[in-house]
Amino acid sequence: MKPYRLVSSDLKKEKTLVRVRDAVFGGSEIAVIAGPCVVESREQLLAAARGVRRAGAVMLRGGAFKTRTSPYSFQGLGEEGLRLLREASEETGLATVTEVIDEASLKLALRYVDMLQIGARNMQNSRLLCLAGRSGKPVLLKRGLSATVEEWLLAAEYIVAAGNRNVVLCERGIRTFEFATRNTLDLGIVPLVQELSHLPVIVDPSHATGNCRLVAPMSRAAVAAGADGLLLEVHPEPEKALCDGFQSLSINDFQHLMPQLQATAAIVGRTLGVYASERY
Amino acid sequence: MKPYRLVSSDLKKEKTLVRVRDAVFGGSEIAVIAGPCVVESREQLLAAARGVRRAGAVMLRGGAFKTRTSPYSFQGLGEEGLRLLREASEETGLATVTEVIDEASLKLALRYVDMLQIGARNMQNSRLLCLAGRSGKPVLLKRGLSATVEEWLLAAEYIVAAGNRNVVLCERGIRTFEFATRNTLDLGIVPLVQELSHLPVIVDPSHATGNCRLVAPMSRAAVAAGADGLLLEVHPEPEKALCDGFQSLSINDFQHLMPQLQATAAIVGRTLGVYASERY
Amino acid sequence: MKPYRLVSSDLKKEKTLVRVRDAVFGGSEIAVIAGPCVVESREQLLAAARGVRRAGAVMLRGGAFKTRTSPYSFQGLGEEGLRLLREASEETGLATVTEVIDEASLKLALRYVDMLQIGARNMQNSRLLCLAGRSGKPVLLKRGLSATVEEWLLAAEYIVAAGNRNVVLCERGIRTFEFATRNTLDLGIVPLVQELSHLPVIVDPSHATGNCRLVAPMSRAAVAAGADGLLLEVHPEPEKALCDGFQSLSINDFQHLMPQLQATAAIVGRTLGVYASERY
Amino acid sequence: MKPYRLVSSDLKKEKTLVRVRDAVFGGSEIAVIAGPCVVESREQLLAAARGVRRAGAVMLRGGAFKTRTSPYSFQGLGEEGLRLLREASEETGLATVTEVIDEASLKLALRYVDMLQIGARNMQNSRLLCLAGRSGKPVLLKRGLSATVEEWLLAAEYIVAAGNRNVVLCERGIRTFEFATRNTLDLGIVPLVQELSHLPVIVDPSHATGNCRLVAPMSRAAVAAGADGLLLEVHPEPEKALCDGFQSLSINDFQHLMPQLQATAAIVGRTLGVYASERY
Repeated sequence: MKPYRLVSSDLKKEKTLVRVRDAVFGGSEIAVIAGPCVVESREQLLAAARGVRRAGAVMLRGGAFKTRTSPYSFQGLGEEGLRLLREASEETGLATVTEVIDEASLKLALRYVDMLQIGARNMQNSRLLCLAGRSGKPVLLKRGLSATVEEWLLAAEYIVAAGNRNVVLCERGIRTFEFATRNTLDLGIVPLVQELSHLPVIVDPSHATGNCRLVAPMSRAAVAAGADGLLLEVHPEPEKALCDGFQSLSINDFQHLMPQLQATAAIVGRTLGVYASERY
Repeated sequence: MKPYRLVSSDLKKEKTLVRVRDAVFGGSEIAVIAGPCVVESREQLLAAARGVRRAGAVMLRGGAFKTRTSPYSFQGLGEEGLRLLREASEETGLATVTEVIDEASLKLALRYVDMLQIGARNMQNSRLLCLAGRSGKPVLLKRGLSATVEEWLLAAEYIVAAGNRNVVLCERGIRTFEFATRNTLDLGIVPLVQELSHLPVIVDPSHATGNCRLVAPMSRAAVAAGADGLLLEVHPEPEKALCDGFQSLSINDFQHLMPQLQATAAIVGRTLGVYASERY
Repeated sequence: MKPYRLVSSDLKKEKTLVRVRDAVFGGSEIAVIAGPCVVESREQLLAAARGVRRAGAVMLRGGAFKTRTSPYSFQGLGEEGLRLLREASEETGLATVTEVIDEASLKLALRYVDMLQIGARNMQNSRLLCLAGRSGKPVLLKRGLSATVEEWLLAAEYIVAAGNRNVVLCERGIRTFEFATRNTLDLGIVPLVQELSHLPVIVDPSHATGNCRLVAPMSRAAVAAGADGLLLEVHPEPEKALCDGFQSLSINDFQHLMPQLQATAAIVGRTLGVYASERY
Repeated sequence: MKPYRLVSSDLKKEKTLVRVRDAVFGGSEIAVIAGPCVVESREQLLAAARGVRRAGAVMLRGGAFKTRTSPYSFQGLGEEGLRLLREASEETGLATVTEVIDEASLKLALRYVDMLQIGARNMQNSRLLCLAGRSGKPVLLKRGLSATVEEWLLAAEYIVAAGNRNVVLCERGIRTFEFATRNTLDLGIVPLVQELSHLPVIVDPSHATGNCRLVAPMSRAAVAAGADGLLLEVHPEPEKALCDGFQSLSINDFQHLMPQLQATAAIVGRTLGVYASERY
């Protein structure tokens, strides 16, 4: 007996489509979200937004509030970061997603972005899940570092039970004994979760591997495994990034990757959500 | 180079003493906190409080706000639970600790209890860590299910950096491949953390093992390993518990265990904080 | 400083080609090995061999000696299994690989098969590694259930140091806290190992997932990630298999999968080793 | 339903006593085995043997054949090491245990030592388990690095099913994400295995922690948890050890530890097997 109900494929066979402006998760198109780990400056974010838009991303990511392991790490620009995300969105037409970490950041984010991200560290922050649920905004729910598939789906259940069915799950690597990569990207659960639940599932190979040279192979692998989208770190100048530069693709890398993803999507009978590149 | 500073033994060699009314953590006495996982009713809590007081506990635990994996599990009595904790404290003289899960529960708890507990699921909830830091109340910080020792000490650093040096660390088992026990109690890090940090470290064998028959051996083992205290689940009627009954000791079990802990403490040159049993 | 030398890409940049009769590992072709987990009977093995040959596999697998967790599980047909592998090889032209578990089985296998497999449980059986090294036969070395990349490469170093450079590495899933799949297939290390070492790396999605419905997506993902080959369980009647039937593809499933793998190979600039299907 | 039978407490309630000359495992006495990780020289081994004997150990350990992760690490003195163990045994009266890694080393060891050790890396080497079973010698079976309790008991079942009931289990730490200690000593399974099986269970805190400063606290903890014995690394000059010196106790450390273990044993109603120190 599954302990979750609303997110279960037993309740609803057909896949849930989660629409975030032009981006659609869970349909025949594979949605690629790209952008920097952290919003650092107007210049950096706009360069990233233009670059990923041109290469075919359908959505822009960027962190304004970061949960960091150390209190001495850069914690994000806060509301100023959100304003920059809105500006980048207005210029490029890309929908935006940003991480929220508590009630205050969630309330602010609701005014500026199109989708809320709940990070791995907050996957079982039930208060935050409920608030995200009540907000009605689409939610990107990352799997916790050591969360089982069942716990992850129960976290999604919190959001849906609070009245919000627009949940996209995101696999981002789990913590194992292997430290040759930052975390272990668990692609095997992508088709499994798609059997268990009607919610879309995307993959973040940037955080999982922590190594920009592994991001392209793992992005192709995720699409080949049937993922409904990707969440990628792309930075205009990875070597100068304030956070996670080592795992960021350059815009050039990203442009090179997208046609490979398009071709891989075709093998699983899908396409990339590439309309954007045509209009821009 | 250690990434934490304020909690490091490099900064301060002598152990920090954390006082919570009569209970002291980090000194020569070993502090035993006991009580039910969740406050269920006035009757249940008072029976538990009287029982653990008589057996020698120096502090009462009881959950009023629970972070639960499933939205359909019992989430606690909320403020009513806090009121009952205060009543039990007034009657028995025991100091109290309860888990806080967000800003609202933290603000309420400050009015009713003597120590705030931050649970494993919230160990990296940096907002909650900062609020607990600013509150000035003693904080019991549980290790996250898959947190490294370094991440755990950095979480404590958040609290201390916010101005609150009264932090007690609590090892409660980590997630591993082994499911014969609920989690794997990692006692080896107790003496290690005592080398790395000046903060007291206590152990929760109830959650770690999830099996009441393993709680007594692991409690003795924790004291033998040098732990500064224990956090134990004790329920007047474990078979009727709303939460985690399978891992709760009965009051009788607990009374039987305390003299063993007293004897084990002597081997490491310490005593149990047993004054309470004499006065009650 | 890498602790291994002979297997390191520091010693030799160009990839090692391991030839096993017509099959080549590490070149532009991707080699697909298929067949049953265990040789059960002449009828079963020949049906499997004919089926996988027709669908384009370049090599036949089949276990004659099994290391089983329980002494009461079926341990394989022994030499009779090896004879059947040789017969299937003679009929279909496929090269063969079988697991060896000790000196006696290794000596027997040398007379019947084209490649020796060392299983996950024996990855650090240094005696067996040395014997396989001295034999000169190509060796398929599976990663241990909890082996780090470094330990795996050191195990390969044992074989090469004993004089045998024909080593193919095989990722087969690692043990983690997640039991929704049998093990966690760690595809992220495929491109990593290809950077660290000149040895070919293939992937076994059957054992890793333990779920036949996940084998096709994970096979595509492995090829998309750049794997040099696949090791697949294919059984003529999975529902009747004596071992691991739940994770076996039927011959029909396998025939359906191969064109997808061919198309995925093209995306990474490679082809499947499909000559066989033309000749048969 | 338990998948093992002969080792199960369902078959036999009373604990199995395993006698190795004067040492007894599983009775009221706690047996302490001590000695160097590897036999390095006559001088080193005799100094260790005399020292541990004087301090109250009932058995001498020392490796002559090592399974090492790297082929370039010291692999042991082989038969010469066994001869030295016999000599040390004759002089001190201590029974001896040494690791066997394949058929050849096992056959040699049978002529020189009193107990065979099967190491963590070979826990699922079913051939070796069977040979150890047929030998009739007492066997010390270490838990594999990532073996579940069930797999470990099934490995013991192999030995008992081959006709040898003299099996002592040894917990030596499991592989987890936490690298602050070498492995994670899983003491919680000690009382659990004693419920599931009638076989004695001892603990090796030296390998588990990899840190000599953690060995004393974890040794006390193991006894407090109910372990039937300990396996400790003691070296006359830890700073000069060829292998694992960092985790070895000096003879002085060991002498200091034994009275603490004696006192801890009393708390669980047992004694240390200390007769030896009186006679020597």
